[in-house]
Amino acid sequence: MARTQREISVAEFFAKNRHLLGYDNASKALLTAVREAVDNALDACEEGGILPDIDVELSLSRQGSRPEGNGTDEGKNGKAASKRRSPAGVLDRYRLVVTDNGPGIVRAQISRIFGKLLYGSKFHRLRMSRGQQGIGISAAALYGQLTTGKPIRIVSRPKARGPAHLFELQIDTRRNEPQIVREADVDEFPHATGTRIELELEGRFAGGNKGIFEYLRQTALANPHAQIRFTAPGGKLPHVFARAVHEVPIQPREIQPHPYGVELGTLIKLLGATKARRVSAFLKEEFCRVTDRVAASILKEAGLPKQISPKKVVRGEAEKLHTAMNTVRIMAPPTDCLAPIGEEAMVEGLKKEVDAAFYTSITRSPAVYRGHPFQIEVALAYGEPLPGDQPARCFRFANRVPLLYQGGGCAITKAVNSTSWRKYDIQQPRGGTPVGPLAIYVHMASVWVPFTSESKEAIASYDEIIKEIRLGLQECGRRVGVHIRKHKRIAEAQRKADYITRYLPAIAEALRDILDLDEQETEQVATILADTLRRSRNF
Amino acid sequence: MARTQREISVAEFFAKNRHLLGYDNASKALLTAVREAVDNALDACEEGGILPDIDVELSLSRQGSRPEGNGTDEGKNGKAASKRRSPAGVLDRYRLVVTDNGPGIVRAQISRIFGKLLYGSKFHRLRMSRGQQGIGISAAALYGQLTTGKPIRIVSRPKARGPAHLFELQIDTRRNEPQIVREADVDEFPHATGTRIELELEGRFAGGNKGIFEYLRQTALANPHAQIRFTAPGGKLPHVFARAVHEVPIQPREIQPHPYGVELGTLIKLLGATKARRVSAFLKEEFCRVTDRVAASILKEAGLPKQISPKKVVRGEAEKLHTAMNTVRIMAPPTDCLAPIGEEAMVEGLKKEVDAAFYTSITRSPAVYRGHPFQIEVALAYGEPLPGDQPARCFRFANRVPLLYQGGGCAITKAVNSTSWRKYDIQQPRGGTPVGPLAIYVHMASVWVPFTSESKEAIASYDEIIKEIRLGLQECGRRVGVHIRKHKRIAEAQRKADYITRYLPAIAEALRDILDLDEQETEQVATILADTLRRSRNF
Repeated sequence: MARTQREISVAEFFAKNRHLLGYDNASKALLTAVREAVDNALDACEEGGILPDIDVELSLSRQGSRPEGNGTDEGKNGKAASKRRSPAGVLDRYRLVVTDNGPGIVRAQISRIFGKLLYGSKFHRLRMSRGQQGIGISAAALYGQLTTGKPIRIVSRPKARGPAHLFELQIDTRRNEPQIVREADVDEFPHATGTRIELELEGRFAGGNKGIFEYLRQTALANPHAQIRFTAPGGKLPHVFARAVHEVPIQPREIQPHPYGVELGTLIKLLGATKARRVSAFLKEEFCRVTDRVAASILKEAGLPKQISPKKVVRGEAEKLHTAMNTVRIMAPPTDCLAPIGEEAMVEGLKKEVDAAFYTSITRSPAVYRGHPFQIEVALAYGEPLPGDQPARCFRFANRVPLLYQGGGCAITKAVNSTSWRKYDIQQPRGGTPVGPLAIYVHMASVWVPFTSESKEAIASYDEIIKEIRLGLQECGRRVGVHIRKHKRIAEAQRKADYITRYLPAIAEALRDILDLDEQETEQVATILADTLRRSRNF
Repeated sequence: MARTQREISVAEFFAKNRHLLGYDNASKALLTAVREAVDNALDACEEGGILPDIDVELSLSRQGSRPEGNGTDEGKNGKAASKRRSPAGVLDRYRLVVTDNGPGIVRAQISRIFGKLLYGSKFHRLRMSRGQQGIGISAAALYGQLTTGKPIRIVSRPKARGPAHLFELQIDTRRNEPQIVREADVDEFPHATGTRIELELEGRFAGGNKGIFEYLRQTALANPHAQIRFTAPGGKLPHVFARAVHEVPIQPREIQPHPYGVELGTLIKLLGATKARRVSAFLKEEFCRVTDRVAASILKEAGLPKQISPKKVVRGEAEKLHTAMNTVRIMAPPTDCLAPIGEEAMVEGLKKEVDAAFYTSITRSPAVYRGHPFQIEVALAYGEPLPGDQPARCFRFANRVPLLYQGGGCAITKAVNSTSWRKYDIQQPRGGTPVGPLAIYVHMASVWVPFTSESKEAIASYDEIIKEIRLGLQECGRRVGVHIRKHKRIAEAQRKADYITRYLPAIAEALRDILDLDEQETEQVATILADTLRRSRNF
């Protein structure tokens, strides 16, 4: 068994496992590449404090020939293995160009950012951003290279009026290192600063709920400060998703992890690496919300001396420290590392998305999973003209990025399905999606969104996250329930009022006969009766 | 943006993304660690041609203190951020020991197999096995280290009567390299050869459909040649899943990729790396099912000269070669790289799992996705005492490993839900799981199963795979449909027969009166009538 054991490069790993990155079928592959490029462009603009101006161009560069039922066996069981198979054919090929007006990238970094997997600035910090793993855009380059053999081409201008740097890159998968095919400085670039990537890749251009247009539309909704132009394959004029807000969102601040939920192993590693000379100072430096008083409580709870040095903490003591950190009451993490969409903006977004009678939203206060702050936002739309006999449509967002795939495996879906909607007078099959004129919009903002795979399509089911989403859904659900019941009451009162109103003339006539009133008196009585009924609280 | 850009080690990446490896909640974490250890043990035994004898022991090593609703904010929106939070508490901690009688591991390899992610022998070959990525068992070690700070301990004896090698290992996450905490040779080991791993980790021991007992039970069903003993936490005697078959399954053979579906980028890489001097020889060496005649057809179709050297093929020519490889008809890949469970064994397995009136199964002939052969097996159980009013239960297997999580994101579920079950007289809500007295068992055997995440819980939705599963379900579904209709016919005929039989005496009496028969003759007539009706094909 010894001979064949060897190291696997991370690029080899992801090339073979390209479905982990969102490249398991042709239409999803194209969407994933667009998404990685647009996410990067939005992140770059926001980091530079620039209002994003993003151009997405997609064109067919080779017509495919893949027949129906490619690659699979059409024959009867048993015989097929020994017969010749129908050919596999080839897929369509597209050229993707994404240009942004962000701050650009300095020449020395370009080759590794685009030509090396697991490389970047976002992984080692705690701050909300779309990208976080240092994989996305180089994975798109890898997929392009894998399916077309062509290098990715980058043009970036990091200094206004300075030269733009052009790179053509291949990824050496065996070593996970960039190979520079071509490097030059060029003058031409459409913005003062910014980056353009050009990529050729196999794919299929699809419409519908999981298509590129829908992704861009939802992205524009969650990012009203961005202007996005999209030229579809064969399209002559670009479709413009116009800017609705003319301010760059406030830059989220980078924070330290919160003491709750930090793993023991991580704590031991941090203790070994710190420059602090006392554990109390270490706690205050490495974690947020640790004051002198909190540090003292933790050390007391752990039974450790105040003056102890981090280097002298042995495993058993670290364990006590870890338990104490999770036992002492500590303030919730700061919220300025997160940039929630906001209650009003969510309702505005939802209104563009669906027509309904009632809208409500909530931005919950931040919570923590594994030491990472996160914040859940929920908005609901209810009532006509939404169809009453279909499962509620659910819009999922993570750090302002719409999630279109893998709904079944997402914590948001699990939270929706495990909420008791019947309490709010909304139908629900057992353990299923609620049915009725309802649309659900959930956003998770976090310094680290735990996705179920590198393709970032669904949120992993951490208990703390599911619980927070459910609390948000319940809060909004209660308001919808109140709306539904109020409307039922109004309808009921209206029915009663109609009924009484119909008999008002008869009552007035009866009173006229009994009290012997004249025409004018009778009319007055009728008016008084009608006014009284109208003002009645019982209505 | 330049300063903070840096490389991310694969161990850091997976430590932060531990949910990708199946460690997103406490009960799943424990299951995942058990599964990785048992999968490895089964693979090792089969590679050594040894009947597996596997011991799994799980014991509680620390009682946790995690309160209800840990880590999340219980307060009202808005106020909570500024108040002290309830403590997070700590989770239960378990000790896991898994011992096998496999061939053992030579001393020089132990530290990297268990202490380095992306290292192993299974990634770079095309042959069916449970492990394939070189991540699983070192990820379990990483999770143990992260949550308890404790090293993984391995004892392995690779030579009968030789010494057993003991290692205690930590993973240096910053470098993704093993750190040897302790190394020694010991005498004690319960088998002639084999490996034992000992691990401490946080978790929760859960029962039910997604628990460890269920996983081991399904594993025993799909691996009847293995004996597995399981000691649950607090249990005194182990539960034994006894061996049912006393032969080691035939070792699958390692193969070359099939020309269909190989990516252009991979082809270019292979052309650059080959030692073959002509492209025709290159094609025959690097791919399966390429004969002289096939190689000649490919070259002709590509318009390349017969004598061309692989080193001289430029990108444009590689593209033509790639198109030709997917256009020429080529025999299906060999099947001896796969070890399907088999039609009979599947029905046997399903019979142990569920009681039903009718069973059927099919092992389809192999197909190809991305150049990788794979084979789909389907078994169905139908009829009482399975409940008629519930969605069908679906058992999913990949390379003989039961898949318990992420059913919603799995190609098997998608294929089940997109099959038209109504054709076979089985109810089905639109696009949903069929409802009725039905159980579904699907196995995918492949030299490379594309899982949706590193935790290997669901199969990615490659079109070719979904299509094959659907074809298997349709074949079995047709047979169930025939069974259902036959039973309906039998029931109908029985109803008619009962009806006629009831009137037989009256008919006999009428005949007696008309023909003036005596008692004995009347009885004969009645018997003849009954016999005729019983033999009638119209029944």
